[in-house]
Amino acid sequence: MKNTTHPAITRTARTATVEQLVEPKQERAVRTRAHILKAAAELFADQGYQRTSIADVAKRVGMTKGAVYFHFKDKDDIAIAVVEANYQRWPALLDEVKDLDLDPLGMIGELLDRTARAFRDDIVVQAATRLQAERSLIKTSLPQPYQGWIDRLTPLLTQAQEAGQVRADVAPDALARVLVSTFFGMQHVSDVLHGRADLSERWAEVRAFALYALAPH
Amino acid sequence: MKNTTHPAITRTARTATVEQLVEPKQERAVRTRAHILKAAAELFADQGYQRTSIADVAKRVGMTKGAVYFHFKDKDDIAIAVVEANYQRWPALLDEVKDLDLDPLGMIGELLDRTARAFRDDIVVQAATRLQAERSLIKTSLPQPYQGWIDRLTPLLTQAQEAGQVRADVAPDALARVLVSTFFGMQHVSDVLHGRADLSERWAEVRAFALYALAPH
Repeated sequence: MKNTTHPAITRTARTATVEQLVEPKQERAVRTRAHILKAAAELFADQGYQRTSIADVAKRVGMTKGAVYFHFKDKDDIAIAVVEANYQRWPALLDEVKDLDLDPLGMIGELLDRTARAFRDDIVVQAATRLQAERSLIKTSLPQPYQGWIDRLTPLLTQAQEAGQVRADVAPDALARVLVSTFFGMQHVSDVLHGRADLSERWAEVRAFALYALAPH
Repeated sequence: MKNTTHPAITRTARTATVEQLVEPKQERAVRTRAHILKAAAELFADQGYQRTSIADVAKRVGMTKGAVYFHFKDKDDIAIAVVEANYQRWPALLDEVKDLDLDPLGMIGELLDRTARAFRDDIVVQAATRLQAERSLIKTSLPQPYQGWIDRLTPLLTQAQEAGQVRADVAPDALARVLVSTFFGMQHVSDVLHGRADLSERWAEVRAFALYALAPH
């Protein structure tokens, strides 16, 4: 579009210029915050809440402690941000899977497959899971785990029952609770026994078992 | 039996007298140790490893710290004793269940039913489970969890497959791993969301799901 003297366009252009002046600083702050969060997640996942200090986090990102404190109030504040970043992943993941236009049972399988990969590969998920296990050490209370997953799976299981893909003689919320427990136990045992190195194989076993148990026979 | 002057009996009687002199002190020591262990388990289960001190344990049993140190080297030593007491329960439980003369699948069900009750009611089991979750805080390494359960269930599942009670198209050790993961996840989610108040209902759900998934269709 050619530049004209039309007042609306002039106003837009002027706003854009202001944003261009302001945004890089905000963007940098957002990037720095994400950078700190990732470093903290690596430390929390690797050595736990107790042994990780703000000084460790600062050292890992090559910043001063003061610079870290500019973004986070204290260690608890970082821990909560990591756990929240974890919980923000799942609704986004569900939206992605919904876009694939699968049948209800296919969606459940795909959602859990992607979740298993996240537990294997995503440091924020791993850190948040460890922080949840160590939640008694953290003064500020963490968001409640598991219930969000149960609430996300229940309507999908209801749809799968309506489509005749899942046995209809067990309530969908009961099936959702069992799936969430089974998934969590699987990744936890894999973590404790093998540092999650065998997570893909263990998920394949649990997946086959669960699909067999969900099928109407 | 009447008392006679038969030398063998005299010797037995003399030995018994020595034991009577020695045993009460040993028995008292054993009882005191068990008493300390139980108090420590209550504290570990309730407030975790970090917030429990030897002083707390001593106060709870009405002893001096010195008296507690007579039985345990340090806090780690008590924590390990609690975890070991937990692991000693399961082979004994398996022996009890074997004495019931059930069929293989019946034995698996009964074993897990009793284990679920122990997770609900037994403070040593609850404490050991929490200590395992907090194991990164404990300097001395704890006995490895889960594998013993997988190893106990695998031969029972093999027998159940041979008896045609369990589907034979999945390896028994894979089924054992899935059962252990599922059981652990169930009790953990129940603990985090409801302090294990709903453990009986949650176990009933998981039990029905697992039996359905084990059955040949």
